[in-house]
Amino acid sequence: MNTISLIENYESGESLPQAFYTDKEIFEMDMKHIWQRYWLFAGVTADIPKKGDYFTYKVHHDSIIIIRDDQGGVTAHYNTCRHRGSLICTKEQGNAPKLMCPYHQWVYNKDGSLLKARHMPDDFDKSEFDLHPVHVRIVEGLIFISLADSPPDFEPVQAGFGPFLKPFKIPSAKVAAKKRYVLRTNWKLITENFRECYHCGAAHPEYCRAVVGANMKESADEELLQKQVEWSAKGLATKGIDFVDDSFHFAVRYPLRSHVESYSLDGKAVSVPMGDHQDYDAGVLGLVCYPNFWIDAVSDYVWTMRITPVSASKCYVDLSWLVDENAVEGKDYDVERLIEFWKVTGEQDWELCENNYSGIESSRYQPGPYAPSELDVVKFVDWYMGRLKEGIGG
Amino acid sequence: MNTISLIENYESGESLPQAFYTDKEIFEMDMKHIWQRYWLFAGVTADIPKKGDYFTYKVHHDSIIIIRDDQGGVTAHYNTCRHRGSLICTKEQGNAPKLMCPYHQWVYNKDGSLLKARHMPDDFDKSEFDLHPVHVRIVEGLIFISLADSPPDFEPVQAGFGPFLKPFKIPSAKVAAKKRYVLRTNWKLITENFRECYHCGAAHPEYCRAVVGANMKESADEELLQKQVEWSAKGLATKGIDFVDDSFHFAVRYPLRSHVESYSLDGKAVSVPMGDHQDYDAGVLGLVCYPNFWIDAVSDYVWTMRITPVSASKCYVDLSWLVDENAVEGKDYDVERLIEFWKVTGEQDWELCENNYSGIESSRYQPGPYAPSELDVVKFVDWYMGRLKEGIGG
Amino acid sequence: MNTISLIENYESGESLPQAFYTDKEIFEMDMKHIWQRYWLFAGVTADIPKKGDYFTYKVHHDSIIIIRDDQGGVTAHYNTCRHRGSLICTKEQGNAPKLMCPYHQWVYNKDGSLLKARHMPDDFDKSEFDLHPVHVRIVEGLIFISLADSPPDFEPVQAGFGPFLKPFKIPSAKVAAKKRYVLRTNWKLITENFRECYHCGAAHPEYCRAVVGANMKESADEELLQKQVEWSAKGLATKGIDFVDDSFHFAVRYPLRSHVESYSLDGKAVSVPMGDHQDYDAGVLGLVCYPNFWIDAVSDYVWTMRITPVSASKCYVDLSWLVDENAVEGKDYDVERLIEFWKVTGEQDWELCENNYSGIESSRYQPGPYAPSELDVVKFVDWYMGRLKEGIGG
Repeated sequence: MNTISLIENYESGESLPQAFYTDKEIFEMDMKHIWQRYWLFAGVTADIPKKGDYFTYKVHHDSIIIIRDDQGGVTAHYNTCRHRGSLICTKEQGNAPKLMCPYHQWVYNKDGSLLKARHMPDDFDKSEFDLHPVHVRIVEGLIFISLADSPPDFEPVQAGFGPFLKPFKIPSAKVAAKKRYVLRTNWKLITENFRECYHCGAAHPEYCRAVVGANMKESADEELLQKQVEWSAKGLATKGIDFVDDSFHFAVRYPLRSHVESYSLDGKAVSVPMGDHQDYDAGVLGLVCYPNFWIDAVSDYVWTMRITPVSASKCYVDLSWLVDENAVEGKDYDVERLIEFWKVTGEQDWELCENNYSGIESSRYQPGPYAPSELDVVKFVDWYMGRLKEGIGG
Repeated sequence: MNTISLIENYESGESLPQAFYTDKEIFEMDMKHIWQRYWLFAGVTADIPKKGDYFTYKVHHDSIIIIRDDQGGVTAHYNTCRHRGSLICTKEQGNAPKLMCPYHQWVYNKDGSLLKARHMPDDFDKSEFDLHPVHVRIVEGLIFISLADSPPDFEPVQAGFGPFLKPFKIPSAKVAAKKRYVLRTNWKLITENFRECYHCGAAHPEYCRAVVGANMKESADEELLQKQVEWSAKGLATKGIDFVDDSFHFAVRYPLRSHVESYSLDGKAVSVPMGDHQDYDAGVLGLVCYPNFWIDAVSDYVWTMRITPVSASKCYVDLSWLVDENAVEGKDYDVERLIEFWKVTGEQDWELCENNYSGIESSRYQPGPYAPSELDVVKFVDWYMGRLKEGIGG
Repeated sequence: MNTISLIENYESGESLPQAFYTDKEIFEMDMKHIWQRYWLFAGVTADIPKKGDYFTYKVHHDSIIIIRDDQGGVTAHYNTCRHRGSLICTKEQGNAPKLMCPYHQWVYNKDGSLLKARHMPDDFDKSEFDLHPVHVRIVEGLIFISLADSPPDFEPVQAGFGPFLKPFKIPSAKVAAKKRYVLRTNWKLITENFRECYHCGAAHPEYCRAVVGANMKESADEELLQKQVEWSAKGLATKGIDFVDDSFHFAVRYPLRSHVESYSLDGKAVSVPMGDHQDYDAGVLGLVCYPNFWIDAVSDYVWTMRITPVSASKCYVDLSWLVDENAVEGKDYDVERLIEFWKVTGEQDWELCENNYSGIESSRYQPGPYAPSELDVVKFVDWYMGRLKEGIGG
């Protein structure tokens, strides 16, 4: 069956046919219709506090420069010089007063406009050679970019995420740790993994010790209702945002077990309460923005996840841990302790995602039925397939 | 010329056109018409003596679970869960009372039937989600599998190999050593290499010191006739099996030089006589089963070779050395001494096979004439081409 | 746009469309219409001084044997046995009285004729199984080969390079050092880099300290005219050879700064004057032969560069440093000091070439305008495109 037929004949409720995970052509469709169209989490403003601070983010073949401009804003541009195409920023992060190509020293302003091109003829019109711009949106210190000419509306995400994020004061937070994993899996399998807890009971003992109901053996409903009253009283946002129609963002707050203060192996806090939080009782804030963004935030730290596909069978997962701007390493937090919960839990997931991919490669793999507890996976997979259908004009 | 024409225009007697060694499309045809159809040597029952002992074998994209069942038999299944496709056994070998998927804990019996799928809806029909089965045949402790729906008849192989293998008592033998090589060559070049001794004189001095006639300078006929009488008297099978028509198995027994007891660098025995053998005078037993099986057995040990293609230009070769079940390491045999003959001789061959492949990649490579002493290579190549012709319906 | 359209619609003056740097199909066209047609620098005769000395050079899929024959000449043949295709010479260099295939010991003379094929039938006609020949031309100790059936005329190169090279006495020179770099870039970007000095001012401070005008801030014209008079008086060739029409070779001699004796970090000589040179005043001799040859020679050493594409995104660059035949290591020259200038300068270029490639991979890369100082790059790119046009019969 060819790709178009596969897309048109897709029926919801089962895992995707093999080609959607392994095929090169479909991977290119994923890139075109989703990754070069939707909003991608790139990083946090706390990583580029000063004018000219920049980092680069490579999505498929495109390296993007994300830089703090002179007005305190953030701009993003394709990292390819308009002269002969060289990378302009060759490091993963740095500071640049101007964006100067290392090859022939063409100089661009932080807004991408070409400032100077040495030895070009008199009739050379600089205004035609600005860097290609990339859309940027910032919501409470989280930087999202879109490579599309006309990206989808980001306003609902901004309005939805804002109230949840505000108390963490992410714009002034401290990036305490980062970690990159290279996974042999398809990017969708990571999102599928993170959208269900059917696997949690056996795979994530540490997670299940922290979160009521994660093991699917007990109900969290009663505790949730009680907590929501408490959270509201403290001014914390509680009303979750579900995926509806073609929306691509999601928010939820749920309680930790009583006596559990944070995502840690012993349940105790790992840093001082973050931002406006005064205690360790904010539960867990979970945010998702398709296709590459995930946050799990507890009272004392924010954990961000950025997924980046490299090929049908390869992904990067970049993690960062943010703590309060005034938290002092060695006194208020210890890096090893800060990261250990998600190091342990994440690595359990990466292994599952890689095994999932390897099994799907089998000639006898066939789509299987999602369990009722995997409803959110079905929603994601339907959203994904909707984007391909839209892309091929179906 | 396209692939179909290449196949149809093939004329016997010359090495294959380049594409049959290097082309991706033809490699996929090899997989489909030969590797996913014929019987593949997977391993020995001695490796999985107890109930639930298993090992996995990956052929192209398919990982296969081979497990000892509760009745002492062996079953094989595709290693892909019927839920969302994950690998079920993620290790190369182990023991499993039941086959439980590590992702969502679906549990299968050793016969592949789905025993338990947690949290599935009431109308879920377990009987529709058994693991996909793989055919298994065992001949004297050697496990063969076929990925075909209807594999070719294995009865002639079983009947043919049985009498030769019986005295070695392989089902209760001891696996004394294993070794894997990763080769940059096409799988067919390994079989071509092992089907002729035109190269032995210069390439294999150790082998030629052990085997009469290997150097093509002397005749082994007289010695063979004399030995056959002795072997028959001891009850050892002597009547070789040649490739005929489309058959895919072969057996031969030939003598070692007088005073040579075993395949060893000094010609002396390396372990106690194996199984029913009472002396070091059983000569060499050679068995072949296309496309991936080779055995060379002497009175005191059995050496097995399993070829596994990874791509047109890459193969694994897995070797194992079996000794008598009662042989004690350090007393009756020394591992280094046991493996050194085939380590030396095998590595000579791997290098030849890699050089052969590299030369064939040349734009000026063209099929060359096989020598009369390469008749068995011609037979293999003809068999191979017959399978492709059959596959394309020619 | 398809490849043919891209070629037909190409307009001079801008960097090439992305596909010419990154596309697999166009890479194969490069191989066919340029690398398997034009003259390739393979190495120097000084590397194979004795009868039977040989080295191998791999161009795309073809390994070539270049060997010193019994008459003192040099022959070249495809390194693929006419029997079953094996590599004949498996090492990068060595000595062989005859060319004997290691597989079945077919023996070829140094002129490629088949001398002996063991055990072949009586009616086997040896004369039909000579090695496939490769064209060879030698100019003053530099070995060029062509894989074409009818290569372009080499006479102009020979006549043009001869007078420039003669004083260096390269045939008897000493190969003092070699170095290989593996670059993630397209081969054309290396030539583009070496055909302009627009980038030198910022990228090559050491080079600019040695060469007048390299920084584009000062004119070298007056000094050149003065030097040309002196060089002519010493009998050194001074009249440069420019690229004209479809020609593929180039020569130039230009002065070092006054008081600079050699390409070295301190400007002092690094070895004794080479060959017929009596002082350190010969300036710099630059020779280019498309697609893979570059020489920079100063009074005391010759630096050669050989470019070899492996794929659209990968190249080898092989460098060698030649000194006078009588120069003694440790006394007349020190290897570290000999190579440091081009190690530093070359590595600056390799980094620029790799960054250039990475930026060109961007989906937003588009051809940009070459500067007036990049006129020689335009000439190269036009020559390149002309070859593709010719190749497709356009």
